[in-house]
Amino acid sequence: MCQLLGMNCNVPTDICFSFEGFCERGGNTDRHQDGWGIAFFEGKAYRSFIDTKPSSESPVAQMVKNYPIKSLNTIAHIRQATIGAVELSNTQPYQREAWGLNWIFAHNGDLWNYNPIIKGKFQPVGTSDSERAFCTIMNTLAAKYPDCPPPLKQLYKELEEICAPIAEYGTLNFLLSNGQLLFARCSTLLYYVIRQAPFNEAHLIDKDMSVDFTHLTGDNDRVAVIATQPLTNNEAWTKFEKHQLIAFKDGQPVEFD
Amino acid sequence: MCQLLGMNCNVPTDICFSFEGFCERGGNTDRHQDGWGIAFFEGKAYRSFIDTKPSSESPVAQMVKNYPIKSLNTIAHIRQATIGAVELSNTQPYQREAWGLNWIFAHNGDLWNYNPIIKGKFQPVGTSDSERAFCTIMNTLAAKYPDCPPPLKQLYKELEEICAPIAEYGTLNFLLSNGQLLFARCSTLLYYVIRQAPFNEAHLIDKDMSVDFTHLTGDNDRVAVIATQPLTNNEAWTKFEKHQLIAFKDGQPVEFD
Repeated sequence: MCQLLGMNCNVPTDICFSFEGFCERGGNTDRHQDGWGIAFFEGKAYRSFIDTKPSSESPVAQMVKNYPIKSLNTIAHIRQATIGAVELSNTQPYQREAWGLNWIFAHNGDLWNYNPIIKGKFQPVGTSDSERAFCTIMNTLAAKYPDCPPPLKQLYKELEEICAPIAEYGTLNFLLSNGQLLFARCSTLLYYVIRQAPFNEAHLIDKDMSVDFTHLTGDNDRVAVIATQPLTNNEAWTKFEKHQLIAFKDGQPVEFD
Repeated sequence: MCQLLGMNCNVPTDICFSFEGFCERGGNTDRHQDGWGIAFFEGKAYRSFIDTKPSSESPVAQMVKNYPIKSLNTIAHIRQATIGAVELSNTQPYQREAWGLNWIFAHNGDLWNYNPIIKGKFQPVGTSDSERAFCTIMNTLAAKYPDCPPPLKQLYKELEEICAPIAEYGTLNFLLSNGQLLFARCSTLLYYVIRQAPFNEAHLIDKDMSVDFTHLTGDNDRVAVIATQPLTNNEAWTKFEKHQLIAFKDGQPVEFD
């Protein structure tokens, strides 16, 4: 099993505070020590940092914690290996380019005996169930929409439909972003919190560390943080419903008609 | 214009020494200060580190210099922007997945008025001539070989053929690797050196720094280093011929019949 951390904002924001607590779960406060990764969108581009060392010890994670990268959409993952060896090819988040956009995906959960025939332009590089699910999602979308991605509402519906049969193989909690918005899907366990004015102080669960967002934010800033387990002990985290898919844009869930 | 650095080896080797000198050219000993990037293959997987800061100042570059990552195929790039803005989407190396393999590409040179209609599964995310060339190369290969990549000799010939018309638009020096081998193509300027037993001390041109490879290597180790300009002043660098394409495997050029 693994843990997920995502952030979607209306202004580019760094994830340093949340990542600081999240990293502790990679070998210190929790046992997710089989690698980690984080991907930041900057415009249409992204950059990712991944390592097979535990996030609590990794020199790459240390650098990420000290180098604030501001992003509208960020996805991080810490791994406890179950399906697929501890090696870089099974270290998430995964990325593929489709329609001139980067798509970033990270999965938490096990999909037992999920070995579909993967037909299409996206093929797994590694051996994880997660990458097979990602390639299946992207191939299904690309086959149905060869020239450009569907509009947001349609994309949301397609993702719900594509994911339902995959989720029957086990647990499919995931984060997916194309840099424009961030989808979060829950099979079993996922929470989110919205930070917006009036801002307050937040205190991490995994490390004795607080930050007062009133000093760091503008009145109109809005940030959604999504995580497998709440990262702070004094904020109101909302638990996802089972099989709920939420599209986050500009720091809040998109309401569809 | 930009500069390229590549390494292909028969045993996983870190690039720290060469990268140390190469980074100096990103703002110190040379003017390539509009971003940089490096990609390391580890098995079939890769990880890349990119930054829009000059490599001589970037905290990410500092971390890469201090964290030896051993790889059979490494590609690095420092940028002096000409076509395409200074932003992350135009920062190389670029990557695409094809046939379940990662393909990494970095380009040096300008391709003036190179605006082909890019048909196929690989589309540019950014606005650089380099990414357009990379997508064209990959789309041409994928269209001709939909199910699996061609064997090495055939791949070499295809690349020669695909590249010739692109190179007519200007300068097409590039490095391309799928993790199994490294292709280096020269329009105007590219050098390589082979390090193998008996090993010697090497001294950087861009920094007063030497390394004695006799203490760091095994008798059978072999490393090819490819660079836009020689990195050391006491080794025998071979200059590529104009429009020469070399496939490096196990630390040496592949000889085709």
